[in-house]
Amino acid sequence: MNTFGYAFRVTTWGESHGNAIGCIIDGCPAGLKIDEEFIRKEMERRRPGKAFTSKRMEEDKVEILSGVLNGITLGTPISMLIRNIDIDSKPYEEIKSIPRPGHADFTYLAKFGIRDWRGGGRASARETAARVAAGAVAKQILSRYGIKIYGYAKEIAGVKFRVEDYERAFEIAECSDIRCPDPEMEEIAKHRIIEAMKEGDSVGGVVEIVAKNVPPGLGEPVFGKISAYFAFALMSIPSVKGFEIGRGFESARLRGSENNDQIILKNGKIRFLTNNAGGILGGITNGEDIVMRIAVKPTPSIAKVQKSVDLEKMEEVDLIVKGRHDPCIVPRIVPVAEAMTALVIVDCMMLQHLIPRSFV
Amino acid sequence: MNTFGYAFRVTTWGESHGNAIGCIIDGCPAGLKIDEEFIRKEMERRRPGKAFTSKRMEEDKVEILSGVLNGITLGTPISMLIRNIDIDSKPYEEIKSIPRPGHADFTYLAKFGIRDWRGGGRASARETAARVAAGAVAKQILSRYGIKIYGYAKEIAGVKFRVEDYERAFEIAECSDIRCPDPEMEEIAKHRIIEAMKEGDSVGGVVEIVAKNVPPGLGEPVFGKISAYFAFALMSIPSVKGFEIGRGFESARLRGSENNDQIILKNGKIRFLTNNAGGILGGITNGEDIVMRIAVKPTPSIAKVQKSVDLEKMEEVDLIVKGRHDPCIVPRIVPVAEAMTALVIVDCMMLQHLIPRSFV
Amino acid sequence: MNTFGYAFRVTTWGESHGNAIGCIIDGCPAGLKIDEEFIRKEMERRRPGKAFTSKRMEEDKVEILSGVLNGITLGTPISMLIRNIDIDSKPYEEIKSIPRPGHADFTYLAKFGIRDWRGGGRASARETAARVAAGAVAKQILSRYGIKIYGYAKEIAGVKFRVEDYERAFEIAECSDIRCPDPEMEEIAKHRIIEAMKEGDSVGGVVEIVAKNVPPGLGEPVFGKISAYFAFALMSIPSVKGFEIGRGFESARLRGSENNDQIILKNGKIRFLTNNAGGILGGITNGEDIVMRIAVKPTPSIAKVQKSVDLEKMEEVDLIVKGRHDPCIVPRIVPVAEAMTALVIVDCMMLQHLIPRSFV
Amino acid sequence: MNTFGYAFRVTTWGESHGNAIGCIIDGCPAGLKIDEEFIRKEMERRRPGKAFTSKRMEEDKVEILSGVLNGITLGTPISMLIRNIDIDSKPYEEIKSIPRPGHADFTYLAKFGIRDWRGGGRASARETAARVAAGAVAKQILSRYGIKIYGYAKEIAGVKFRVEDYERAFEIAECSDIRCPDPEMEEIAKHRIIEAMKEGDSVGGVVEIVAKNVPPGLGEPVFGKISAYFAFALMSIPSVKGFEIGRGFESARLRGSENNDQIILKNGKIRFLTNNAGGILGGITNGEDIVMRIAVKPTPSIAKVQKSVDLEKMEEVDLIVKGRHDPCIVPRIVPVAEAMTALVIVDCMMLQHLIPRSFV
Repeated sequence: MNTFGYAFRVTTWGESHGNAIGCIIDGCPAGLKIDEEFIRKEMERRRPGKAFTSKRMEEDKVEILSGVLNGITLGTPISMLIRNIDIDSKPYEEIKSIPRPGHADFTYLAKFGIRDWRGGGRASARETAARVAAGAVAKQILSRYGIKIYGYAKEIAGVKFRVEDYERAFEIAECSDIRCPDPEMEEIAKHRIIEAMKEGDSVGGVVEIVAKNVPPGLGEPVFGKISAYFAFALMSIPSVKGFEIGRGFESARLRGSENNDQIILKNGKIRFLTNNAGGILGGITNGEDIVMRIAVKPTPSIAKVQKSVDLEKMEEVDLIVKGRHDPCIVPRIVPVAEAMTALVIVDCMMLQHLIPRSFV
Repeated sequence: MNTFGYAFRVTTWGESHGNAIGCIIDGCPAGLKIDEEFIRKEMERRRPGKAFTSKRMEEDKVEILSGVLNGITLGTPISMLIRNIDIDSKPYEEIKSIPRPGHADFTYLAKFGIRDWRGGGRASARETAARVAAGAVAKQILSRYGIKIYGYAKEIAGVKFRVEDYERAFEIAECSDIRCPDPEMEEIAKHRIIEAMKEGDSVGGVVEIVAKNVPPGLGEPVFGKISAYFAFALMSIPSVKGFEIGRGFESARLRGSENNDQIILKNGKIRFLTNNAGGILGGITNGEDIVMRIAVKPTPSIAKVQKSVDLEKMEEVDLIVKGRHDPCIVPRIVPVAEAMTALVIVDCMMLQHLIPRSFV
Repeated sequence: MNTFGYAFRVTTWGESHGNAIGCIIDGCPAGLKIDEEFIRKEMERRRPGKAFTSKRMEEDKVEILSGVLNGITLGTPISMLIRNIDIDSKPYEEIKSIPRPGHADFTYLAKFGIRDWRGGGRASARETAARVAAGAVAKQILSRYGIKIYGYAKEIAGVKFRVEDYERAFEIAECSDIRCPDPEMEEIAKHRIIEAMKEGDSVGGVVEIVAKNVPPGLGEPVFGKISAYFAFALMSIPSVKGFEIGRGFESARLRGSENNDQIILKNGKIRFLTNNAGGILGGITNGEDIVMRIAVKPTPSIAKVQKSVDLEKMEEVDLIVKGRHDPCIVPRIVPVAEAMTALVIVDCMMLQHLIPRSFV
Repeated sequence: MNTFGYAFRVTTWGESHGNAIGCIIDGCPAGLKIDEEFIRKEMERRRPGKAFTSKRMEEDKVEILSGVLNGITLGTPISMLIRNIDIDSKPYEEIKSIPRPGHADFTYLAKFGIRDWRGGGRASARETAARVAAGAVAKQILSRYGIKIYGYAKEIAGVKFRVEDYERAFEIAECSDIRCPDPEMEEIAKHRIIEAMKEGDSVGGVVEIVAKNVPPGLGEPVFGKISAYFAFALMSIPSVKGFEIGRGFESARLRGSENNDQIILKNGKIRFLTNNAGGILGGITNGEDIVMRIAVKPTPSIAKVQKSVDLEKMEEVDLIVKGRHDPCIVPRIVPVAEAMTALVIVDCMMLQHLIPRSFV
């Protein structure tokens, strides 16, 4: 189950401290011009080593090994490889037999009877670099159709950010160290992150993802609802504990008359007076903006003493997790959530035959 | 995409006002004794025609057409049929060309160019009866392993319900007209429903689903996370707009040190001091209770005047939706959400080889 | 694994002597006019009860339960039901514990630990009636594109039939009791069938299937080769033991210079001088006729004494299989093979976006 | 569709003259000790550069990039990389716009509107190196269960080889340049290959694959028949035009009484007097040897003048294909067919829960 998608299928592979990570895109339309510089920029957006994030320095250079000839896709699998370079497994070796709270150490062991203790192995957020590479290809397809995906922090450490215009919010957030779209609240949020960091602690937040110009008719009846598919895609990102679309949990407190988006004619087209539904009715897009939010838990790797169990000795121990960690993963999850959103939309457009098998 | 599951695959079919609806279960282990009385009871739990719900009277009798010999499963597809009996399509005929706000009328049309206008067609919540039938088989499998699934309303019309013990909450809720687990708040919630109903309006709420005794090790790395799978399953239920697991959106506001569930030894087994994670780490179960919540929007069918567009004349009109509708769908979504939860767990247990291909 | 297809997905269900059998088509384009009379005729072509075939009398009436409104498909699952009427399980009851040679009795038991002993249960050729119903819908789609599928016996009981023109062969065969396209050899073949029948024995044969006007470009690289897909489809029919395409096994004896189909221009289009490849190169259609053959083993149910084992007593016994059986299944396999061929072509055309999601 | 398998899933990628080719195995059990030397030997068995085969010199070194820690599988995707080294695209450049008869040049173009003209691109038999790497892992799993897979030429250039004992045939063939199991006929076959080669021509043949000690109960009812799955697997190998199992096409000429394998008791176990069925009944294994044959067409690349069309000028031309080609691909297809057979058996054993998710 390391493959995502039906028509545009992405398989990722690789452990955090192995030789490399990578992905295969199977089903990408032929005849697409691949902009490698755009892929590089997207990788850069997710890259660690910046303020408020992990100190691991990875160039994250994507090597395209197949599926592309003279910069044009062939319709065959696109294999992308990212070498793991700045690896330091030592801090992990000491706690090899002690599962870290909030991490998948215990559960991978419960599942497989063996686990890669080096930097979280397959469960590490490093795996998401491969998703961003695949998402960068998907975004290039979407840009042919004028579809834009905007992601930014909607809340960090309990500080809520105000957003009026999605596009502008995205632009502001891209200039912010913490992908905050609300300059008024940015310093307060940063302060809280720093405070937590000083105490060896971490914070979480909420990411909002918006997709504009998505055509109506995407998604499938019953089990293929695009809302369910988005939930599946975004909940598969490490640390995500909640998902909502449109007004989401808020809509549970509204009356039907408040929540329903009334239907109007605008320039001869069916449109909606409001967008409480977040662009989706009955699991199928209605042409309005897709608006989604995900809850990101605080980074589980903290420098505070925590209880755990040494599985070799089968005794309780006090654990302090060393290594290089993000005090707040929210800013780096933004490009990953955008990538997953792009994958879902491209996939649904291919299933609906709105993207061809070949652009030639 | 009317099929759900990898190893235990459920396909549903049927329109609200067609001849029948039904489902196929493919991959059910052989040698399972089918308790038809239990299926009947589960159908009864979802059935309309009770207080606070739609007036449609359906016996919802499940006819098993294949896959079972002398009450024992054969390992071959189990086909279950439910006839549609109490059908009244007239109220829908008048508004055939006018999409209802909050419904999938417009989006199905955008997708397929044609739609079954009779009672919502395939997008009707009637489809979920087939899910409950399949879920009743899944629950019978789970009961062999001591796994219990409890669902109830956690909030209705903005009234939050207090829950201390999941099992007790379930038992209380089962005796409540509105599946309320909190006797203190029940009357207030009912009052709000009645108030909305009197005004021709509707309300929403939150459903909580708990699974107990789920073994550790379920779910798959990366895209097969069981948390993502639950989200996919529950978001595929009509009217659901949000999903969270464990502390969910609340965890976004916690510090890492508060949110991490510390690890302890209990009777020689790895357990967790708290369960903020809702029983899942890295997308794989850790043996603690699975705790999830979904946001249910207010029923879109309301008796108030709403704006819409007559698609034949392409002009805006004022619409009043007639027909028989639930002022609050929350109580009836509970067994559906339980069914979907059961399907996910059985499927993941089969993928993990914890349920055999045959019980013989 | 009772589902076939990727975009146009058919799930069949049902046991030979159960209440009913049936199928679901998921992914059928919307807006297709369903010709129920054509479905009836296709069912009639497969029906038993004629000369040289089993005496079981089944009307095989197909009841469409969903997915169609006023004769037009909705894009939602089409559920089709066929009741089992003329059932006589008695001859099977006596040999409940004795697996029949050449049948799946032992292997189903090895797999599931339980089997439906009534008339072969799920392994019975009766299951193929549901495939013919689904294939009849697929053929209606193909007819919009001028694609024709012709099936007939190419050999029966060792008697080879000469075919010069595929269409004419089909027409002649449709008028023949044994679907023989070669009037000169028909009587010899019939004589051999009758001879075998008299001795309580059975014969096999070869079926040829041709698809004309199939567009180039169908099939997918590597594992999705349409030749592999056809092999998968046709080998899934009970009693089929071999598959070949184009010159098939004969091409293994040719030189490259004899076997290669040279490439020419014809009316400005790329065509081939010969068609040894059977319309497929590299697993992708080339626009020439698809020509395939399958080997059909002699019916395993024979009235002769055979050795078997009574599994209750675990002792060897002499077995004579009673019941109503076809001395030669070849004629009845023809429409089933055509149906499977139609399913593959429709599926590949949808994957290639040559058939739309909706005809509206 | 570059992925094969349900539980043990192999995705291959790469073009013949691209940077590299490779594969991902997703679903491999954890805790398996990987014998890299065995993988190397299997690659060596398929490698070109030997007598009677292409002159391309590839070391075909497999680099394992993920999924394995200290030689033990983790249960996560195993990524294997094989660099393309000895590449000479020049002979292909001249005929860039001229599709070669018998090759996929025209059909890839028909499908994608673009094709990798360098050495056949994705359609090249070079892709099968990745299958052999994956198959080598599968074989290591099977060896834990005593399951052996034997492949050899059964016929080359019309010369049929006699086989009495499968294992011995394999051992002899492994010492033969052309994988011939019949020393008496080997020189005649070689002579025919050399004769064809001298004339710039090529020959085909038949490969036989036998799997011993396969447990009963593998394969799934109806569309998941293991016979259909083997056909799908083996027909996906380039140049394969036919498939048969057991007596195959020969059984079409037998009487039921001759073809049925009668059932006996042997050491308290159900066994069969003969094995005309090739180890499969009703699509499910019966515990006897799996015996299959595939028809391999003569190599399409020949040095003789052939007609084709220059697609740029849209005019007919005379084509002579240069480059390095196998006059007979049969010997090199043997390890590929074995690999595909191993993948099917491992996959079916996992689906049947006979191979665990983890060996730890």
